[in-house]
Amino acid sequence: MLSGGIGGATFTQGLLGCVDDETEITVIGNTADDIWLHGLKVCPDLDTLMYTLGGGIDPERRWGRAEETWAVKDELAAYGAEPTWFGLGDRDVATHLVRTQMLSAGYSLTDVTRALCVRWQPGVRLLPMSDDRVESHVVVDDEESPSGRRAIHFQEYWVRLRASVPARDVVMVGIESARPAAGVVEAIAEADVVVLPPSNPVVSIGPIVAVPGIGEALRTTTAPVVGVSPIIGGGAVRGMADQLLDGLGVEVSAGGVGTRYGARATGGLLDGWLVDTSDADQLDVLEDAGLRTRAVPLYMSDEETTAQLVRDTLALAEEARA
Amino acid sequence: MLSGGIGGATFTQGLLGCVDDETEITVIGNTADDIWLHGLKVCPDLDTLMYTLGGGIDPERRWGRAEETWAVKDELAAYGAEPTWFGLGDRDVATHLVRTQMLSAGYSLTDVTRALCVRWQPGVRLLPMSDDRVESHVVVDDEESPSGRRAIHFQEYWVRLRASVPARDVVMVGIESARPAAGVVEAIAEADVVVLPPSNPVVSIGPIVAVPGIGEALRTTTAPVVGVSPIIGGGAVRGMADQLLDGLGVEVSAGGVGTRYGARATGGLLDGWLVDTSDADQLDVLEDAGLRTRAVPLYMSDEETTAQLVRDTLALAEEARA
Repeated sequence: MLSGGIGGATFTQGLLGCVDDETEITVIGNTADDIWLHGLKVCPDLDTLMYTLGGGIDPERRWGRAEETWAVKDELAAYGAEPTWFGLGDRDVATHLVRTQMLSAGYSLTDVTRALCVRWQPGVRLLPMSDDRVESHVVVDDEESPSGRRAIHFQEYWVRLRASVPARDVVMVGIESARPAAGVVEAIAEADVVVLPPSNPVVSIGPIVAVPGIGEALRTTTAPVVGVSPIIGGGAVRGMADQLLDGLGVEVSAGGVGTRYGARATGGLLDGWLVDTSDADQLDVLEDAGLRTRAVPLYMSDEETTAQLVRDTLALAEEARA
Repeated sequence: MLSGGIGGATFTQGLLGCVDDETEITVIGNTADDIWLHGLKVCPDLDTLMYTLGGGIDPERRWGRAEETWAVKDELAAYGAEPTWFGLGDRDVATHLVRTQMLSAGYSLTDVTRALCVRWQPGVRLLPMSDDRVESHVVVDDEESPSGRRAIHFQEYWVRLRASVPARDVVMVGIESARPAAGVVEAIAEADVVVLPPSNPVVSIGPIVAVPGIGEALRTTTAPVVGVSPIIGGGAVRGMADQLLDGLGVEVSAGGVGTRYGARATGGLLDGWLVDTSDADQLDVLEDAGLRTRAVPLYMSDEETTAQLVRDTLALAEEARA
């Protein structure tokens, strides 16, 4: 699995319910939306995966910890410590403290993630895409800047601005020199199936496949590579993504995202691409692009619909292998 | 004021109620019980002073924040992150986050303390004794060590062991190369009165006067230097100090502690020393040592008794000046 946060975590949880205990699942998490806040290293996607699979996620928000409290956040605001727009819950802060202290002591993010998972037992091997610092910055208009634009951290765009202004570009700072984390390339090369769950193609899956070596591993693995469209009926399941993708000139459609990844046969990343039943009209354009595709229900509204989507995804992978 | 935590904070609070708005008070806080915990720089005495004078202290515990919660602590324990014996409250953690981030950015502890006090408005200028790292370590017996002893951080001795084993020695790691923080020596040199409030002579006042330059400033200031005994009726007001002092061979009596500081006229640090009325039998030994002394009620049990002690202390200083 190559995964962002919520969509990937939900899909992976469904996957765990569909496989036997012998099945080994490696989840390669996006780290390009990681951010340093108040001296703490925060890894939103890794934490969403860890908390969701480990049973600690807030079931309503779908990020952060269940039964969370906010004393630290309120106190930081009372000190005037910026930024105030990112919600660091008290329980969550403990995760970041452990992570930050281990990183300061010289451990890699891979080591730290493994250590945190000793507690959470997510049932998968959770790997960061890279131990190197990569940060997605979004270019927005800024009248006060001489260039008329400025780049802000993805989290500022997403959490503070709620994607309410047009995104002119996304710059992945550090991506050229980032190396895949230990085990990432091997996991892809040796996989039976590689799945891209419904995650944002630009800021979640995008950075993972942009790490030098990971795209190549996807193109050359003997495993089928299949993905699930994060776009349903012409809109992202979580609405803010529409605005982001639209501003970047990405066609906000199941077919647009699938053809953007492209078919492995023609130098792309995918063998197969699942779209929602409401997007059945996109099948032709995807097939024309060389992708094996099917229209099935994509909404993961409960355990059963998620399980069925997992089965449909694995079935498409088997078709692609054949 | 040269101050440790609770006793000094309580006395200083009383002092603020006894002086006019024009009076400038500088409190030089002990930093030798500072400790790094979970990657955070914790300054127990500075924080007790800041929270007490700023109205944020827990009134029962007399350390840490009022209406404190403990989610971070519980979560750190769930991760198995050591140590688990030090109670970092959620609100308190925010203080340490702001401090640690500023220190990491290159600010001095003096700068950081000033910044934190912008919020707390303690009504005094609060200075750390030094910006350099100094840590009191307590030497205790250890059968498993080849030397039969080992040194542990003061906080471990105090908080984890609750001073329940004999202290063989106190080592102030880093003290030789520590420099007084900016403003400390000047504050003592230019003071009208220097007060040692009732704080532990070994682990609170001891480190402050051991910083090279601070003891000399006390010996040479034109201001009278007066102190208040932390020992009442042959015991420390907060009992654990007895065990610590006893183990170190310090006579646990008002007279013993006063003569240990010694009179400035004979190379010591004090002009005057207040003892409790119950310790009036100690006046002779103190006067023999060259100290101006009086027996007055020392228990700061409420606002009025604290105010009276402050007045008695300032009166003794005026006597010493004359």
